Amino acid sequence: MIARTPEAFAKSGIDVRLHTRAAAIRPEQGSVELDSGDKLPFNYLVVATGATPRRPSVVGEDLEGIFFLRNVTDAVRIKRFIEERNAKRAVVVGAGLVALEMCEAFRALGLETTVVYRRDLPMLRLGEDFAEQILQELEANGVKFMGDTTLEGFEQASGGNISVQTSNGRLETDLVLLAIGVVPAVKLATEAGLALGPTGAIAVNDRLQTNIPTVYAAGDCCECYHRISRRPVYAPLGDVANKQGRIAGANIGGQSLTFDGVVGSICFKVFDLEVASTGLTEEEAKEAGLKAASFTIQGASRAHSYPGSRELQLRLVAESESGLLLGAQGLGGDGVVSRINALAVALTGGLTLEDLAYLDLAYAPPFSGAWDPIHIAAQQLLK
Amino acid sequence: MIARTPEAFAKSGIDVRLHTRAAAIRPEQGSVELDSGDKLPFNYLVVATGATPRRPSVVGEDLEGIFFLRNVTDAVRIKRFIEERNAKRAVVVGAGLVALEMCEAFRALGLETTVVYRRDLPMLRLGEDFAEQILQELEANGVKFMGDTTLEGFEQASGGNISVQTSNGRLETDLVLLAIGVVPAVKLATEAGLALGPTGAIAVNDRLQTNIPTVYAAGDCCECYHRISRRPVYAPLGDVANKQGRIAGANIGGQSLTFDGVVGSICFKVFDLEVASTGLTEEEAKEAGLKAASFTIQGASRAHSYPGSRELQLRLVAESESGLLLGAQGLGGDGVVSRINALAVALTGGLTLEDLAYLDLAYAPPFSGAWDPIHIAAQQLLK
Repeated sequence: MIARTPEAFAKSGIDVRLHTRAAAIRPEQGSVELDSGDKLPFNYLVVATGATPRRPSVVGEDLEGIFFLRNVTDAVRIKRFIEERNAKRAVVVGAGLVALEMCEAFRALGLETTVVYRRDLPMLRLGEDFAEQILQELEANGVKFMGDTTLEGFEQASGGNISVQTSNGRLETDLVLLAIGVVPAVKLATEAGLALGPTGAIAVNDRLQTNIPTVYAAGDCCECYHRISRRPVYAPLGDVANKQGRIAGANIGGQSLTFDGVVGSICFKVFDLEVASTGLTEEEAKEAGLKAASFTIQGASRAHSYPGSRELQLRLVAESESGLLLGAQGLGGDGVVSRINALAVALTGGLTLEDLAYLDLAYAPPFSGAWDPIHIAAQQLLK
Repeated sequence: MIARTPEAFAKSGIDVRLHTRAAAIRPEQGSVELDSGDKLPFNYLVVATGATPRRPSVVGEDLEGIFFLRNVTDAVRIKRFIEERNAKRAVVVGAGLVALEMCEAFRALGLETTVVYRRDLPMLRLGEDFAEQILQELEANGVKFMGDTTLEGFEQASGGNISVQTSNGRLETDLVLLAIGVVPAVKLATEAGLALGPTGAIAVNDRLQTNIPTVYAAGDCCECYHRISRRPVYAPLGDVANKQGRIAGANIGGQSLTFDGVVGSICFKVFDLEVASTGLTEEEAKEAGLKAASFTIQGASRAHSYPGSRELQLRLVAESESGLLLGAQGLGGDGVVSRINALAVALTGGLTLEDLAYLDLAYAPPFSGAWDPIHIAAQQLLK
């Protein structure tokens, strides 16, 4: 670990102020006002205020034992609570990436785990077929899933327990994780006159400049361009934030770099299942005004004959006339992220199904069949 | 398993003749002459004569216990020989993909295994640094590697053993595998007036037609176009053969498909090491007349903090002025083929280092860090 103390930063000429809050950004004065009243002058400013967890706005959401998870400090706090209270039960509200990953973490610690979710299946964006398999994986690993269930509030129960009130009745638990998404932290930005985009996050150009050219924004507080839907999207993901930060910094430092946007790649592991997606789903493609078709194949992560080969499903989405790839979703025991990443590159390169059908992928039985699931899916969708 | 008997084929109107050899192709007559003297007329012909193992041309190479490996029948024959003779020692001549994979197979059966190779390291095409690690992996798994060693001949030794004579002395062994590559089987083709390309394999256009338009060729008997070096290459690989066969068949069947060539993707597993390559090495790029530079990074297969993350090395090769990706080579414990396949797609799409440096790959700690080895390598080579 590199020690990143204020003193270490100071040696590089970087003034790090901990426990200091910005009260206002004053672009017209070229300064940031601190809550101490001090002013920090700037030639360039980067707004990297991140995101805050979405709150359900129900009674009792501030009770002890109700957590959000945004960072390592939160994780340590949750783990300590479980240990100190000898917690045996967790309720997870939400069924997104963080919620599903935390189900695995809670089960690994031996907690009885229940998901409360407003829709009937998790990850419905990926299609009902994939959503059902994700649900099965949760249930096979002892997670109870309460679908079609609205959170109504929390109450303190006896012995420090929490009573969770839902549209499907009450649940008693030791701790609750609220994982219903995040919202961009844009209060300072809007007060300073920085323009927000249609997603509600700070609008930036491809150099990461806001509407005020000396003010840049990067990370979970700003939106980014989706190269396939050609629309601004809100993608509060660690890897996107890293890229935006680096490009904003490089531009301020005198380079000229552009961030050409995302293709919408995500992945997660839930117990023994690998799930990944890039680009648009068929539904999203249609919402974006594109004529699209999709095909889903059942394939294998390695050559069928090779020990340890696991089943996977791969769905390709392409533009109907041109055959241009628009997206891909995959799910299986192994080798899913690998295919989705290759297809993320294909989206970046503007490849068509014909390109994909005969792509020169590295072949050896421990890694795939002579026809990879990518080839097979592209050939099927071409038909 | 689908039963692929002549009877089953006959039901689809396909006349399969086993134990039948073509004596000559007569394009001017539109027929193939069988060694029985019969003639098979054709409108279209596909030459798929494959390749034959390269022979070392030394004395004694036909002794019992000396094997080639081209197909499953060969593999079964070798395994049966090991069992029946209770073989304890194997000598592998050559150090290519088949040779290295067979070292692992022989060691798995408990055989003392020695590689005899004319160069000082295996897989030198991938660079000395990678070659040395492959050697270490072989040796760590009990394979003896005799480098800088020329095969001089074989003699029958006592008790059915074989004495292998090399430039570095004699070796006694129970069996020998000759794995020094393959040569295209083009005798019938050349006698029929089909043109060979510069590689010595049958020349075909992108529709897989030979110089005689009604005669197609596909698979290990013909060459293919390398999209990066823009030269014909001989790539006798199962996945390439599959693609060529399918495209030749589709064209004969009335479709109009082109095979746009390979980018040169290969991969193999040798014991606990994953090795893969796509496109050109720096040396090959220079031989192809391109100004190229490369950079090799040390990365990790998953997020550093994630259990099971393994070290890997990734080398990118790019054109000096344009930054156009020309190739990539990787080696490590895990996650290598996945990166090389993404880069094979990048080669297909004509991506540059700037594209790769900020590629939207799916990120989650079980699968990579927020900066993937691909990003890091591209950023380093851009410097």
